[in-house]
This record gives sequence, structure tokens and C-alpha cells, in this order.
Amino acid sequence: MKFTVLAGGIGAARLLGGLAAVADPEQITAICNVGDDLEWNGLHISPDIDSVIYTLAGIEGEWGWGVRGDTTRTLEALRDLGGDAWFTIGDLDLATHLRRTSVLRAGGTLSEATAALTAGRGLRTTVLPVTDDPHPTIVQTAEGDLPFQVYFVQHRAADTVTGFAFPGVEDTRPAPGVLEAIAECDALVIAPSNPFVSIAPVLDVPGVRDAIAHTRARRVAISPIVGGEAVKGPAAEMLRALGHEVSALGVARMYAGLIDTFILDAVDASLVPEVQALGMDAIAFDTMMVGEAGRARVAASLVATLSASMA
Amino acid sequence: MKFTVLAGGIGAARLLGGLAAVADPEQITAICNVGDDLEWNGLHISPDIDSVIYTLAGIEGEWGWGVRGDTTRTLEALRDLGGDAWFTIGDLDLATHLRRTSVLRAGGTLSEATAALTAGRGLRTTVLPVTDDPHPTIVQTAEGDLPFQVYFVQHRAADTVTGFAFPGVEDTRPAPGVLEAIAECDALVIAPSNPFVSIAPVLDVPGVRDAIAHTRARRVAISPIVGGEAVKGPAAEMLRALGHEVSALGVARMYAGLIDTFILDAVDASLVPEVQALGMDAIAFDTMMVGEAGRARVAASLVATLSASMA
Repeated sequence: MKFTVLAGGIGAARLLGGLAAVADPEQITAICNVGDDLEWNGLHISPDIDSVIYTLAGIEGEWGWGVRGDTTRTLEALRDLGGDAWFTIGDLDLATHLRRTSVLRAGGTLSEATAALTAGRGLRTTVLPVTDDPHPTIVQTAEGDLPFQVYFVQHRAADTVTGFAFPGVEDTRPAPGVLEAIAECDALVIAPSNPFVSIAPVLDVPGVRDAIAHTRARRVAISPIVGGEAVKGPAAEMLRALGHEVSALGVARMYAGLIDTFILDAVDASLVPEVQALGMDAIAFDTMMVGEAGRARVAASLVATLSASMA
Repeated sequence: MKFTVLAGGIGAARLLGGLAAVADPEQITAICNVGDDLEWNGLHISPDIDSVIYTLAGIEGEWGWGVRGDTTRTLEALRDLGGDAWFTIGDLDLATHLRRTSVLRAGGTLSEATAALTAGRGLRTTVLPVTDDPHPTIVQTAEGDLPFQVYFVQHRAADTVTGFAFPGVEDTRPAPGVLEAIAECDALVIAPSNPFVSIAPVLDVPGVRDAIAHTRARRVAISPIVGGEAVKGPAAEMLRALGHEVSALGVARMYAGLIDTFILDAVDASLVPEVQALGMDAIAFDTMMVGEAGRARVAASLVATLSASMA
């Protein structure tokens, strides 16, 4: 079975790690959000791509970002120098951003830089940015418009969100291989990522929604909301602030018409009928990806669900 | 006494360190070569400026470059990733290049980046790049034209040098403060740096030679060649390859007409009459800058020489 996964950061990375453990890694393509990319002291950082790569390489940090056991010698020296050090970058992590920036400054694309990074880590899974064009997520708040990482890291997601903007998204083009990966897979999986700031900026790149509408693949999404809470990050607060129901059902409504199957966590099984009423299949199982075993279990459940629906 | 020092890397850094110990650091300006600047994985590196800053800050590495006691976690990770890692950058050193690049990418000049770095290190000495414009040194060799660091570090200075080129030097402008520092000092000092690849690229920036010709300052150079050998680096091989006499006298000839006083090492005292015959004062004393005490001793001898010549 060929998988294409629309990916944000941590939730997607964990799902991909599990999938690569239970399926052929070479048959998996991740299409990654770049809305939270940032320039950090002249280096290009792609946090979602890095979370995916580090997790696939088995070296992800304890909190889902950065490299496990990393140190911050350079960051501390930079802070001592009066530099811009609010975004934590570890010493091993830094090698990734240097390598990426090296490719970009030499005229390469983000796709090419990403391919260099996956090759450098010996990965067999394909990792693609959704676009090679700049495509930043702006978080609109009561205090003004904030680049995603300013909102999320510098302000610790404390501002009240009023909306999102993706300036220039209409001029972005899907990166090479993105539309093909959607068209030619057997299973298109929307990872349990934030629908507003991880998945929407992937879907909104011109051509992506259309490719999803026309793919022969089974299209499935996994809820990032479990028991009315986000497994990770500010998705629940965003749903609430923007007037959505803060539940897996609220997320399912956002994907209505786009997908065939919605997967809820077992604790939300009571929502299955309401999700089905949106015109999609709904299945509930334990989606908590704790540890490598947990990731593999969720991925195996996903594969079983897909196999059953294709039978 | 106000000092302006034309500076390359290590020899200049040591002289400046000594001078800052025996004179008022606020009365010292270093005008630094940028010909060996390089872009390293997207970061702008200015090796001569950094050697000067680290030495003034008292944190220079054992070999005159980088930061003492530095580690190379990021560099090793970058090498493992298949990145460009032939130029050694330590973890603490890296903070400097990130800070500099951050200023440059935000539209700042190399002067502004350098000022941020000296401020970050709490230095009172002024450190200026000779120019804010790109001004690379190309080493012409039997095997082709090489950027300076490719010749010096990657090829370990093993190629036979046939000449030097400074493409575009005619379009460079002195950085803010450079011509003023030359015009308004009491002592203009050419550091014991490589005359071909450290001092020439400083002198060749339009306006610099003219400012030196018209300054009221006493103009003095210290020989980087002692006993027919370079204290550090490939200056002796370059003198030989280009048909110069490989001695302090060979260097003095290159500065004839530009300076008032030439300082030789005590071991070369026998060359004093020949240097004087070039139309400049010549004085010999122990110029070896071993340790902090050695640097201060040489600086004190320099100050004494200057005081005597101005009396």
C-alpha cells in the first residue's frame, strides 16, 4: 500500500514513525507544512519538516522537536553576545539548519535541501515540503498579526487568536512530486495535526485540494482532538476562539467533503454517529501514540482500517 | 597616543592584544582585512576580524583562531549529514557567525555587524572592516584561481602561488570611519601580517593609500618575517614564489614610500642598514609575541619606538 501523509509537526511525525515501522518506508511520502518556517540568525528553519525527519531517524527530542540529548552551547553563547536567542536551537539540530541553508544559498530549493537532509539521515521515506515558495502562516490576534513562531514560541501561544492569514498563498506552487504523491497513493492520510496551522496551509496551496478531490486513494483523517483536548499544542484553544466545537466532531466538520473516513480516539466513540452524519465513515480506536510501540500500534490500526475499507 | 592598526589575522590580533594592555583601548582602532571572508553553510565568516575580536576579548584559541576550549558538536553533526565541513567552526565560534549573519540578513553592513560583535564582547577598542563591500582575495596558483580559504585551509597552502587577484577592488569603498581613523591617529601601524593577503587587500581599497600618504601620523610597519621565516602562515613561501627576497628586507621593500619606520626582529638587526637605505627608519627589537606578556612587551617596545620618533 502506498501512503501519502499530509503532515504538520509532532503528531504527524509520530504517525509517520509508526507507519514506517509497520509498512514499507519507501512507499510512504510525507507532504509537510512550511507555514511555521522561520529565519533564525540567517538560517532557514523548517520545524515541521525537521520533526518529521528526526522522528523517522529515531533521534527526535523528548518533546517532539529538536534532537534527543542535544546541548545548547552555541545558543547560550549567542545569548551572551546579545543575539536573537528566544527560539531554542540545539547544537546537533543546528547542523540541519546549516545544511539546509547551504543548499538554499547555493540556489537550491527547499525540496532539494529536504532531500539532502533525508539522504544525510539515511531515510527511505520521501519527505516533501508542500511548496518550495515562501508560505508563512500569520496568526491574527487581538494584539496584532504575528508570524507563527512569534505567536507559538515567543508569546507561548498566550494571545487570543482571531484568525489566520496565508499572505501570497495564491501564488505558491506545489513542490515537485506533491500532486503526484496525492494522485498516485492508495491512502491519503491527514495526520493528527492542527487543522488551522498545520493542515490548512497544506490544503490551501493551489492544486492540492483539487488533487485530493480527484485522487483514487482512500482519504482518511485522524483527529488531533481527543476527549475535547488537543493531544499537543493550541488546536483546542483555536477551535474555541474561532467558534468551532472543541471536539473531534469540530475537526471532522472542517474536513467534510474532503475525506472518506474520519478516525476518532476510542474515548470519543460516542461521536461516531454525528461524524457519519457529515457524510464520511467514522471509526474509533486508541489513537494515543505513546512511545514507539504506541506509534506502531496506531499505525497498524490505521492500516487495518484502510485495508478493510478498500476490501 | 591614538593608534590605528592595519590588521590581518593572528599577528595583528596579538599586537592589538598587547597594545590594548599597554595603551588606552579606546584610543585604538583596528582596520581589518576582509579578503579571507567566506560564506560557510550560509553564514558570513570574517576570520581576521574574529581573530582580532577574540584576542582582544582574551578568549582566542590556542592557534590564534576560534575560541579557546571550543567544541565541535555542530561541525561533527554537519559532517555526518554530508555537509560542507572542511572549514572548522567551533560551537562557541558559531555564535559569532550567527550574530554577524543575522545583522547582514536584516540589511545591516559588515561594519554594523562588527560593532554588534565588539559590543557583545564588551570591547572598548574599535574594530572596523576595511570595507563593507565584498572584497575577496583570490590566490592564483599553478592549479587555477582559488578563493583564499580554499587555498589556505582546504588545500593547506600546498599549491604553488603565482599571484593574487582582488576582483572588483576598484569598486569597493572604505567602511565608515576607516579614512578618518587613518587621518586622525598619531601612529599608523602596519601589523606583522602577511603583506600579500592581509595588508595589500587593506591598502588597495580606494582611498586608503592616499589617506596613509597624507596622514599626520607616524607610520610604522612590523615585519612578519623573522630570521627568513614567517612567524605564522605562508608569507615566506609567497615571497619566494613571487621572486621577493625572503627576509624582513623583502617586506620592507614592499612598504617603501608608504611608511616612516620599519621594525625588524632583533635576530634580523644586521638588515637595518639595508632597510634604512630604502628611505625609512629601521629599528630592531624582540618582536616575538609569545603569551600575553610577550604581546605586551612588543607593544611597549612599539610605543617606546613611536614616542622616541615623535620626540
